Amino acid sequence: MSRPAVPDIVIKRLTTYLQTLKHMRDRGKAVASSAEMGRWAGVSPAQFRKDLSYFGEFGRQGLGYDVAYLCDQIEHILQIDQDWRVALVGAGALGHALMNYQAFQQGQFHIVAVFDNDPDKVSAAEGGREILPMARLRDTIRERHIEIAILAVPAAAAQQVADELISCGIRSLLNYAPIALNVPAGVHVRYIDPVSSLQTMTYYL
Amino acid sequence: MSRPAVPDIVIKRLTTYLQTLKHMRDRGKAVASSAEMGRWAGVSPAQFRKDLSYFGEFGRQGLGYDVAYLCDQIEHILQIDQDWRVALVGAGALGHALMNYQAFQQGQFHIVAVFDNDPDKVSAAEGGREILPMARLRDTIRERHIEIAILAVPAAAAQQVADELISCGIRSLLNYAPIALNVPAGVHVRYIDPVSSLQTMTYYL
Repeated sequence: MSRPAVPDIVIKRLTTYLQTLKHMRDRGKAVASSAEMGRWAGVSPAQFRKDLSYFGEFGRQGLGYDVAYLCDQIEHILQIDQDWRVALVGAGALGHALMNYQAFQQGQFHIVAVFDNDPDKVSAAEGGREILPMARLRDTIRERHIEIAILAVPAAAAQQVADELISCGIRSLLNYAPIALNVPAGVHVRYIDPVSSLQTMTYYL
Repeated sequence: MSRPAVPDIVIKRLTTYLQTLKHMRDRGKAVASSAEMGRWAGVSPAQFRKDLSYFGEFGRQGLGYDVAYLCDQIEHILQIDQDWRVALVGAGALGHALMNYQAFQQGQFHIVAVFDNDPDKVSAAEGGREILPMARLRDTIRERHIEIAILAVPAAAAQQVADELISCGIRSLLNYAPIALNVPAGVHVRYIDPVSSLQTMTYYL
């Protein structure tokens, strides 16, 4: 059984729908129409229904969607109803901020290994957190069953680090470096880019 | 003259269109159809045309869009063809990473003031970077013509800091704390949230 190819933008919209649904659920709303979902998520009702149709039937004509049920289903589709093991590369200021980031202490994403190419950082394991040399990348990723990596390295190093991670089998990269990465097909990259976010607000000023 | 109310999601999509157009321009592509734009940006051609129509006429029937011209026009609409002065609140690990972030050294967003409520951090101006106490927030924002703030504070402090910034006239907040902020109408918040980004990739694993 092969799944139909789902456009990447649909996957991204699913996370928006999930946030909307969680917000509704937390406010005690049990049922939502596709019109409501579309309005909250900024798409047409038809787009919302089409996006869901890639994965099955989740609502009934005229009855709308069961909010809690659709939450669970989307979490299952996105595979975020399970735990994931994450490598962090870069133990500079940003890396340390990420190690201490509250949402990584709880939640389903666990930073299980930290790497840096600076011998001084490697030797200085702060607060019990072990920082490994890059030479340990391959065996650690295999032994700790790591499937996702976060890049918190300077822009000049990001492509090389990404290449190394990909050669070790990583197919999901979250990149904090302000540089677009070249990756082969089948590898997914997301960018954390404060400038892009700021650019969506200056319109209002 | 009042501008028509533009949905926030349209403003966000404009930044996606802009990225797509810049990519095309850098590759020497001079003209793009709405079908091409939609395909790259993950929306229907009709949605792309409708989004642009809030701001005027930018293409000609059958001729498509002039890529470089549309780039300039969208930058002008989003007001990112000018410089903006930014305050950073929080001089911890994340704050220091942001101070040294390459894209803030260049580009049109300039961190012109850094604040922290920790007296030790305030006295230790690193590398010539002055870190101000929170008591200086109001006068500094006024004197330095700051219109945007970045929150790099713990989740527990984020709402109070946001309230202070808003009371000082700030209407655009970029929030790194993993907490949803309550803000009055007319104030825009964007969130930098690695967990949300990671959740858009686990589908593929």
